[in-house]
Amino acid sequence: MMVISEKINGMFKKVGRCIDNRDVDGLHAIVYANVDAGADALDINTGPGRDNAAEDIVWMVKTVQEVTDLPLSIDAPVANVLQAGVEACTNEIIINSIPAEGERMTMLYPIAADHDATVICLTFSEKEGINLTADRRAELAMLHLATAMEFGIEPDKLLFDPLILPINCAQDQPQEVFAALQMFKNLASPSPGSTVGLSNVSAGMKHRKLMNRTLLAMLCAHGLTSAIMDPFDEDLMAVAKTCDIMMNNKLYADDYLKV
Amino acid sequence: MMVISEKINGMFKKVGRCIDNRDVDGLHAIVYANVDAGADALDINTGPGRDNAAEDIVWMVKTVQEVTDLPLSIDAPVANVLQAGVEACTNEIIINSIPAEGERMTMLYPIAADHDATVICLTFSEKEGINLTADRRAELAMLHLATAMEFGIEPDKLLFDPLILPINCAQDQPQEVFAALQMFKNLASPSPGSTVGLSNVSAGMKHRKLMNRTLLAMLCAHGLTSAIMDPFDEDLMAVAKTCDIMMNNKLYADDYLKV
Repeated sequence: MMVISEKINGMFKKVGRCIDNRDVDGLHAIVYANVDAGADALDINTGPGRDNAAEDIVWMVKTVQEVTDLPLSIDAPVANVLQAGVEACTNEIIINSIPAEGERMTMLYPIAADHDATVICLTFSEKEGINLTADRRAELAMLHLATAMEFGIEPDKLLFDPLILPINCAQDQPQEVFAALQMFKNLASPSPGSTVGLSNVSAGMKHRKLMNRTLLAMLCAHGLTSAIMDPFDEDLMAVAKTCDIMMNNKLYADDYLKV
Repeated sequence: MMVISEKINGMFKKVGRCIDNRDVDGLHAIVYANVDAGADALDINTGPGRDNAAEDIVWMVKTVQEVTDLPLSIDAPVANVLQAGVEACTNEIIINSIPAEGERMTMLYPIAADHDATVICLTFSEKEGINLTADRRAELAMLHLATAMEFGIEPDKLLFDPLILPINCAQDQPQEVFAALQMFKNLASPSPGSTVGLSNVSAGMKHRKLMNRTLLAMLCAHGLTSAIMDPFDEDLMAVAKTCDIMMNNKLYADDYLKV
């Protein structure tokens, strides 16, 4: 399980203030804390409502990679912000994300190819809405796979994101997501990876941490290989490590939680 | 998720003393506590090393059903003890268990049929050992299904138990168990149920509760319908309830944990 920290995001006040004040030491401290907590990669996001998001993400990427070699997941909904972040990044790059839409794919896959980036492939298209069957998610994943290969990107650089919705609006969706994860594994050999924005499942709900960690275990049981999640949630991290034992990704030892 | 309490078992000292002293009030108090904790059924087991296990289980069954209408899972490795317990039971009966072995099946399925009992079908045979593939587990489940139907028992009275082994001896087994659970669902329509002796996964290990509750979520994601488990483990019960939300078995409400 690759843990991609969701915590380097301008929507969190501490991070937002660092961006506002170009506080290098402040952002470094946040990065150190994430690394200490066990993050395997860092999602970098300016947060919403910034007039100069491209400049902001460039500053974030440059500042973060001064103190860590971890892969950076460059996360922006606007293409030119995403591109600016990717171009500033000298660490391993994850592009977060490319939706299953022709124009965006044609624009973004060449950037991924140029930078040898891993790509988070949303199995989602704005035109179709978000309540998709497992089969439709797998079809959209196939579309990503085919497009990526046109640009010379190998399947092992793709992380399929089946899209987790808040459970209180879409209780029928987790089973579709589980089935989609099973299908993603069989789309290529070696199997492509997968990821989710985990905390979306519990957005605005009461038992968020319990719901997040329970769903994480359920997803791992269907082969999920990474998640964008909170590395400071110790119970969640313990579940991630336990899933690695149950899935035989790591050898059991009594002190496996400390590794 | 049907929670079958593992706690009415003579191997626990409090229960063992009740059996030794024929302490009716003591056993009643234990039953009340299990019901309050949220058990949906009670596994009744004398524990090992009892010379008069058949008499003991009859006393347990009669005493327990004085104060609860919950289904009782009559749990004994010795056939005559199992039979005595079943015959004493006027509540709904679960027979725990019948292994996938010809002689035991021929002896025990008629008893199940006579008492309209639900049967926990072990997908396990002593001859073959316990490290089984998913396919072999499914074949043994088919053998149960066919045998049960010969005796007029419908598939919806069967709970297939894929057998959970301690993770430190068999790290490759959970994935076989997950695949087996998926197969069990497709053996008949409506789908037969399933169950596991959950805590076996962590026997003798350090992070038992974490491992138990993580595996429970993983199993539920593959369609597990019940588990023999500890209803007093609040974190585990919270995971079971959260799985019911994620699997769309219960409608989400903010206070779903209290239901």
